[in-house]
Amino acid sequence: MIAEIISFGTELLLGQIVDTDAAYLAQKLSQCGVSVYNRATVGDNLERATAALTLALSRSDIVFCIGGLGPTGDDLTRTVIAAALDAPLVRDPALVAHLTAWFEKRGYTTSDAIFLQADVPTGGVPIPNANGTAPGLWVEKDSKTVVALPGPPNEFVPMVDNEILPRLQGTGFVICSRTLRIVGMGESVAEEKTADLMAAANPSVAPYAKPAEVHLRVTAKAASADEAEALIAPVADEIKARLGSVVYGEDDQTLEEVVVRLLEAQGKTVATAESCTGGWLAQRITAISGSSSVFHTGVVTYANESKTGLLGIPRALIGAVGAVSPEVARAMAERVRDLGQADFGVGITGIAGPGGGSDDKPVGLVYIAVAGPSGTELTKNIFPGQRADVRWRATQTALDMLRKQLIG
Amino acid sequence: MIAEIISFGTELLLGQIVDTDAAYLAQKLSQCGVSVYNRATVGDNLERATAALTLALSRSDIVFCIGGLGPTGDDLTRTVIAAALDAPLVRDPALVAHLTAWFEKRGYTTSDAIFLQADVPTGGVPIPNANGTAPGLWVEKDSKTVVALPGPPNEFVPMVDNEILPRLQGTGFVICSRTLRIVGMGESVAEEKTADLMAAANPSVAPYAKPAEVHLRVTAKAASADEAEALIAPVADEIKARLGSVVYGEDDQTLEEVVVRLLEAQGKTVATAESCTGGWLAQRITAISGSSSVFHTGVVTYANESKTGLLGIPRALIGAVGAVSPEVARAMAERVRDLGQADFGVGITGIAGPGGGSDDKPVGLVYIAVAGPSGTELTKNIFPGQRADVRWRATQTALDMLRKQLIG
Repeated sequence: MIAEIISFGTELLLGQIVDTDAAYLAQKLSQCGVSVYNRATVGDNLERATAALTLALSRSDIVFCIGGLGPTGDDLTRTVIAAALDAPLVRDPALVAHLTAWFEKRGYTTSDAIFLQADVPTGGVPIPNANGTAPGLWVEKDSKTVVALPGPPNEFVPMVDNEILPRLQGTGFVICSRTLRIVGMGESVAEEKTADLMAAANPSVAPYAKPAEVHLRVTAKAASADEAEALIAPVADEIKARLGSVVYGEDDQTLEEVVVRLLEAQGKTVATAESCTGGWLAQRITAISGSSSVFHTGVVTYANESKTGLLGIPRALIGAVGAVSPEVARAMAERVRDLGQADFGVGITGIAGPGGGSDDKPVGLVYIAVAGPSGTELTKNIFPGQRADVRWRATQTALDMLRKQLIG
Repeated sequence: MIAEIISFGTELLLGQIVDTDAAYLAQKLSQCGVSVYNRATVGDNLERATAALTLALSRSDIVFCIGGLGPTGDDLTRTVIAAALDAPLVRDPALVAHLTAWFEKRGYTTSDAIFLQADVPTGGVPIPNANGTAPGLWVEKDSKTVVALPGPPNEFVPMVDNEILPRLQGTGFVICSRTLRIVGMGESVAEEKTADLMAAANPSVAPYAKPAEVHLRVTAKAASADEAEALIAPVADEIKARLGSVVYGEDDQTLEEVVVRLLEAQGKTVATAESCTGGWLAQRITAISGSSSVFHTGVVTYANESKTGLLGIPRALIGAVGAVSPEVARAMAERVRDLGQADFGVGITGIAGPGGGSDDKPVGLVYIAVAGPSGTELTKNIFPGQRADVRWRATQTALDMLRKQLIG
């Protein structure tokens, strides 16, 4: 079954709100084996909205219309469906009674406009809306189906889950996917190493570049979730075997979560000393529930006197080599490890920009040190991007260095 | 000028990520008078992607293509543009040199695939990308224009602002808006106080609820930006007069930026001591370029021994009243103020959850203290939401307490 989604509304078209409804529906449809090939957004304009629905009906079996079902003048979806399917609107007495009761129960007065929501294209049936006044619509004609749902997410999402998906079950196959999360390897290298797997169709493998990460999503189509999983597992294992330890996690696992769980499992702790990242590394670690057993102490030594005062890094050292230097990164890591009585200490010092760079020490230069039981490891990095990118990449690299020490 | 936006990518089509790029671009286009009538999303499929672009070119003057410009096999946008415009791809030697230099500078190895990003449809020109390797494309042919931009938002947004919008100025009427940013007042109260202004059409006033903030957007349509601004100014002034100091900033100004600028202007500094927020407050302050003059020192005293060791908070005090207590918050603020030799000290201690709560001290309980030249202010808060919400709200409240001390 080929589906298409059309979102109606000038507010959506002009980007004043982001269309989370369509993304939600597309995800759910693909999970139950309905192929979505096109999505469109049109404004509250009768002609263009009707053209969009007519085009969608010409190439898809089922078209989902989101929004435009309310009682106001710019709610055109009913009229558009009636026009595209040549199925004139008829007022449904049961819906009129339902709306009347809904308003009376709340002590609101009704207006004529309210009852526009009781109009149904000929041959269509209303879909109950537990959280609002506008019912959805399900209209079948000439082997095509049009489904309309109201736009407010608190109405839309329960209607998709409780009304739409049950009617679509058993339409055939399911689509399942697993995401392998990679840090420390670029998208093009990851793709090169898995090119043959990416050429296959089921399961398919597709790369996604994320900030300082790459995700490889393995997706399989099968008659059941178990069968899909059986297709995914060997390919996921093969990718892990080829890429090795750069695959740090799966699906929704974040790098900080993996690091916190490794520390937990090994009964180890980490302390952080941050300059250019300004507390972001500590923030990421403590974002993980349960991190209090592995993280006790962090310092943000943003100024030189703070590096000297809090960590005892000699003023003379900073004077001689500069605050952004391998020596200072190393000292920060080692001294915060002592200060926090931790198994690992991380030190980060760099130039996040936009100012502060020089030919010698450009914006993006970040030294990161991880001090552990078996010594101190140091990296020199030149990160691309804006201030926030440089800072993010520095926390990402620091977490990955720590992860590598933990996995040996 | 009529524009259309097409987002390329199976990940977008299937709703695995939400399309914020298209919303951003649509908003910016409408602000500079370009009419957007249609938006579409297609997957990484050559035939359907080319059909979408061909349709768009048949009804619009300018078509924006988002995504699919990277170096991997599912990045089809260049090929799609070449096919739809019948403008074969030509490798641009200047782009090849630029990519080579980009990779060499960072010590990365290049692969053949990388240089696919140097292919440009005949007659097109590349658009510089300051934050990534894939350039954008601007191709004009037969009085139609196709513009392609890479999908990662940290690359996309600056390219729209700095490269695309300047090329589109002066195309008809303009829509301008100003956003007033409010902290410490709920959406319904803000709406109640401005109900009459919200009933007007030009300028219109609309409320948007954000995490621990409310935004009121004032939007005007006029022949020029100056005329639109003249409509906006008195309404914005009226809102500020009615709401008072809860309006902390405008447009893209964040609360941390406002606080850093106030500190800068007054030549004051702040030091932070964080427990449940784990460095997030320091991270937000140091996210602002130029913060090094106002922020020198932060500590993340996540464990009790760290509160004692780093800040000298008596073990006996923590034992008597608990780490989450007004006394400890106050001590954290005052002692980090001394430790960092700062004008202001902020202390935050609370229970972010999901674990750790009790009847007496529930999840969401956060004490925040701000110590300044004229004494220490303390608030007890019970924040709703998940761990991340509680932590975010705590940083937001701390920043606002500091702001209020700074504005007197």
